[in-house]
Amino acid sequence: MSLLALGTVAIDTIETPRGTAERVVGGAATYIAWAASYFTGDIRIVSIIGEDFPDAELELLRSRGVDTSGIHLVNGGRSFFWKGRYHTDMNSRDTLETQLNVLQDFNPVLPPEYRKSDFLMLGNLTPSIQNMVLDQMEKRPGIIAMDTMNFWMDTAMDELKVVISKVDILTINDEEARQLSGEFSLAKAAREILKMGPRYLIIKKGEHGALLFDKDNVFFAPALPLYEVNDPTGAGDTFAGGMMGYLAGKGELTFENLKRAIIYGSAMASFCVEEFSINRLKSLSDSDIKSRINEFVKLVHFDME
Amino acid sequence: MSLLALGTVAIDTIETPRGTAERVVGGAATYIAWAASYFTGDIRIVSIIGEDFPDAELELLRSRGVDTSGIHLVNGGRSFFWKGRYHTDMNSRDTLETQLNVLQDFNPVLPPEYRKSDFLMLGNLTPSIQNMVLDQMEKRPGIIAMDTMNFWMDTAMDELKVVISKVDILTINDEEARQLSGEFSLAKAAREILKMGPRYLIIKKGEHGALLFDKDNVFFAPALPLYEVNDPTGAGDTFAGGMMGYLAGKGELTFENLKRAIIYGSAMASFCVEEFSINRLKSLSDSDIKSRINEFVKLVHFDME
Repeated sequence: MSLLALGTVAIDTIETPRGTAERVVGGAATYIAWAASYFTGDIRIVSIIGEDFPDAELELLRSRGVDTSGIHLVNGGRSFFWKGRYHTDMNSRDTLETQLNVLQDFNPVLPPEYRKSDFLMLGNLTPSIQNMVLDQMEKRPGIIAMDTMNFWMDTAMDELKVVISKVDILTINDEEARQLSGEFSLAKAAREILKMGPRYLIIKKGEHGALLFDKDNVFFAPALPLYEVNDPTGAGDTFAGGMMGYLAGKGELTFENLKRAIIYGSAMASFCVEEFSINRLKSLSDSDIKSRINEFVKLVHFDME
Repeated sequence: MSLLALGTVAIDTIETPRGTAERVVGGAATYIAWAASYFTGDIRIVSIIGEDFPDAELELLRSRGVDTSGIHLVNGGRSFFWKGRYHTDMNSRDTLETQLNVLQDFNPVLPPEYRKSDFLMLGNLTPSIQNMVLDQMEKRPGIIAMDTMNFWMDTAMDELKVVISKVDILTINDEEARQLSGEFSLAKAAREILKMGPRYLIIKKGEHGALLFDKDNVFFAPALPLYEVNDPTGAGDTFAGGMMGYLAGKGELTFENLKRAIIYGSAMASFCVEEFSINRLKSLSDSDIKSRINEFVKLVHFDME
């Protein structure tokens, strides 16, 4: 199945307690595509970049089977730039600088073949842009997933709710689930958010794992306790990319498939944070992934006798 | 197997966003004994109370097979009293009042039959008191577990480390694991703490579940997403009580048994927080517990195909 990913393709400068990376490759769509590329061969990105984005990185994506023809290059423009500093706990961070640059005038136009994509991942972006992409699809994709964040809840809640009402899977973190629902208990929050449209809600809790809810079921996916976290940037996007890549490989959205997809997403995210930028995602082998998945299986396995 | 529990038997006044409970039964040993009583019939408490502690509550414990002869009643004394207020997130709280009362002069003296107990649970108390109980054991118990907290790390680290060096299982929360080890990564923290003596370390993460480490393995026990949390007081003690009660029923300490014990402990803790004080622990049936355990099994179960 083909997977269309909307999201930023960007340049990041990242400071963590483990080091600094200056002007490295970032952006939600970048992480999503890299993670998904280990599970499916037909990935398309819709995004926008400036002249400062390195050609070689696009070439690398293409070598992984990613169609980059929907990444609009603005002549004379500069790519979206984010500079951030992570705190000791690696769970919180300060944004030191944001340059919207080419993103300011981003009106995504999907190439004709993109409009027939089987599955769609709406990476975290302005809800109106997420909606523009949805509107250009010729048929409703078999699975639509979306990621978003508190910033859009603060500034564009009405538009955000319109997009949420149209998707199958929503991924947000625990604080965002509380903000979106007005409920403190995550079980109650999930119940309220599922009434807004999505069939599945995934609550990402970082080092504490993730929760998957549908109307009748709940699943808890663990996070692997890691010895070394060097850079948490893109972990959530990598999670979404691994998950949607796995589903695109499988072709069918069931609770059982989604549970497996979330374990794959969690495994890919656990790799992502081991190195800065997308570096670890570039160097993975299938056996790396298989052995990491086995660690997840072992991590939560018990028999009650 | 017989289980000896050291800990407070106390009076609490508790304020949570869901309500207030004035002068209700509390204390680590109370919660431990109630939780363990669903799994084993031979439980002994060593503690101290004043005249204000209700006789009827001791009678109820005895009716559950708990030996209370090691609870020293101080004539004219008042029981340890704690008053606290939980914040909206139920994970953090302010202590409004602490009256040590009879606890100030607590020198535990074990009745002769207590000294032969098979298993020992050292509830959270001054390390020197935990050590006094250890020193009175005629033979080393088959399993020694201990709970402690950041307060003892701040005020009595040297003594604390002596006790830690003598136990099989240590239970602390994630912040305490970081403080005790000086490591931020919980995987690294566990590695360091296991060098201090314990064969097993359990890191309690409240609503995020618990991690079990030994030298070679790690296990992640989930917490059940709950619709209603009324009072988190005693959840950690209830977890320890369920765990040690299960182990006392089984008789053998292996990683696989300990995994199951932690699931039972988590299930008991999930009941504990549903009502104020020990109220929910008093009303449980075996089928309540069985069906809660099934929810835990379902919560983390997946097949990778």
